[in-house]
Amino acid sequence: MNYIVKDENAIYYECGYSSDNALFLKLGSESFFITDARYTIEAEENVQNATVIIDGDLYGQANSLIKRSKIKKLTFDPKEWSIFHFSLLSNNLKIKFKEAPDFSHKKRIIKSSDEILLLQRAVELGAKAFDDFAKKIKKRGFKRDEHSLTFMAKEVLSKKGRYELSFDPIVAVNGNAAKPHALPTDSKLKQDDLLLVDAGLKYQRYCSDRTRTVSASKDFEFDYNQSFKKKKRQKAYDLVLKAHDNAITKARSGMKAKEIDALTRDIIIKGGMGEFYIHSTGHGVGLDIHEMPYISGRSDMIVEDNMVYTIEPGIYIPNEFGIRIEDMVVMKDGRIEVL
Amino acid sequence: MNYIVKDENAIYYECGYSSDNALFLKLGSESFFITDARYTIEAEENVQNATVIIDGDLYGQANSLIKRSKIKKLTFDPKEWSIFHFSLLSNNLKIKFKEAPDFSHKKRIIKSSDEILLLQRAVELGAKAFDDFAKKIKKRGFKRDEHSLTFMAKEVLSKKGRYELSFDPIVAVNGNAAKPHALPTDSKLKQDDLLLVDAGLKYQRYCSDRTRTVSASKDFEFDYNQSFKKKKRQKAYDLVLKAHDNAITKARSGMKAKEIDALTRDIIIKGGMGEFYIHSTGHGVGLDIHEMPYISGRSDMIVEDNMVYTIEPGIYIPNEFGIRIEDMVVMKDGRIEVL
Repeated sequence: MNYIVKDENAIYYECGYSSDNALFLKLGSESFFITDARYTIEAEENVQNATVIIDGDLYGQANSLIKRSKIKKLTFDPKEWSIFHFSLLSNNLKIKFKEAPDFSHKKRIIKSSDEILLLQRAVELGAKAFDDFAKKIKKRGFKRDEHSLTFMAKEVLSKKGRYELSFDPIVAVNGNAAKPHALPTDSKLKQDDLLLVDAGLKYQRYCSDRTRTVSASKDFEFDYNQSFKKKKRQKAYDLVLKAHDNAITKARSGMKAKEIDALTRDIIIKGGMGEFYIHSTGHGVGLDIHEMPYISGRSDMIVEDNMVYTIEPGIYIPNEFGIRIEDMVVMKDGRIEVL
Repeated sequence: MNYIVKDENAIYYECGYSSDNALFLKLGSESFFITDARYTIEAEENVQNATVIIDGDLYGQANSLIKRSKIKKLTFDPKEWSIFHFSLLSNNLKIKFKEAPDFSHKKRIIKSSDEILLLQRAVELGAKAFDDFAKKIKKRGFKRDEHSLTFMAKEVLSKKGRYELSFDPIVAVNGNAAKPHALPTDSKLKQDDLLLVDAGLKYQRYCSDRTRTVSASKDFEFDYNQSFKKKKRQKAYDLVLKAHDNAITKARSGMKAKEIDALTRDIIIKGGMGEFYIHSTGHGVGLDIHEMPYISGRSDMIVEDNMVYTIEPGIYIPNEFGIRIEDMVVMKDGRIEVL
């Protein structure tokens, strides 16, 4: 198959290197990596199984290569290409362009054993950072606001800039945790507040993702055992943990994504709080923080061995609190293994 | 004119609010802001002069509004739209879509007095952060590597998370400063090293951008007066500063961008180092860190009063050092005023 990819992680997956201005082109038995002169040295050292071409005009260069190759059909992802760039690419070409939405994500859905090792390492480093973050909060985090706590989370997760983050961490207190994509506010952390932290880092470009919700007592840890002083919080927490554990125990390779989603959702519905579980059970993780498979109530996708994804049920009571517990998992020998 | 915008800053410019999942649509005398339910409260509080519509299916909603409006032509920016999203938008519509590359950037090129005040404030906060960063480096920055110094820059610029940054700061030592878009390395800062810092922050969404290159003596400041122990560095530094000052003094409203570019470039060419000045003189700054006007040797654009842009000449000697001095300026009463 002839194809072109443009997204930075999609290109990295093809040839082991990428830059923020590059294209990867597969034409018959030949592969090309095109980038501009800023990246010459790195590209020549790192690109595998493709000819490196340096050209400031990526799209014109790709256009010429396609013309010269005499291919008749080229596959591309219409989500990756702006109308502007696609018109530069396709200018005066008389071939058929085949639209393949999520082309690279579909290729990447089953992880290799090397990829699983990298994801495992990212998760381990992420878990270690949660432990360090707990120490830091207990030492000098109380009375700080969410802005300051979020910055503290970045400091710990990135090891002061050593690792890139999977996304901007969410550090939310009490009512602000009720928004699944909370932005930091001036709310200050007081003892025994509810504290939700959703964060991850990248190890060799592979992402980790984890959420813990805790009762911020003076000796709290980011673990599953939490005692909240308010009964309503404890009830919701126990339900979310039960939903999380139910999926971890009962999910099987060969199930549809929506069946795994039901393993968390049914528990929360039965507990009477279904209306407050306002998102899907999880999402795939790899080079991108959001990949396939999407563990959603609407997805018939079959979940198979060596897929990596999150289990992250949640309950969100507007203006009161939000609870989410998230782990990354891999399907191994038919069952879930928590990374 | 009927138009649709999709970029987050372009939408903010239209109605004073935006989210990461929104569309703004102008149909005759009516305007619409469309976003999903996560942003209902903020949108209803903040959107000005447009009807707020909450819908998980942004593109289907926009498609319906266009159909109902009976308009015949809709302007859009082909750089903003992926082929995938554009096909959702235009599905079954029999109107003419007019491509207008850089539609929003062109509207935003002349800044209002309110915008200039916000940009000025961003620059002031950025300058203050450079001063604080110098203090911090002198106190505990020597012997740290670029990763750690970059993180320190983020800490100071963001006031530990209070402000967003315009971009990831560049903190580069000696040879690494020779790359205009240097990524941090393990190089450690030693006394009297050359240190280049390019950084900015956002104030109420408006960006600042500044570069200083210094000889990191034990009492250095991020100012224009620098004494390098190595003669070649001093010569290059003096030339870059002279080029910078020449543009600041001689640029006039009504000049073409390429004439302003020549005000820096000619000085560096005459000084015998033209081959090492490998980029344009500057770029516009506003809601985006890179906007119009581009102060490039290839641009015939007329630079006018109330445009805001950078003057940032540089000299880059591969593997040895790089020097860049950058300020943000506004055209006022025909001349440059440094922000």
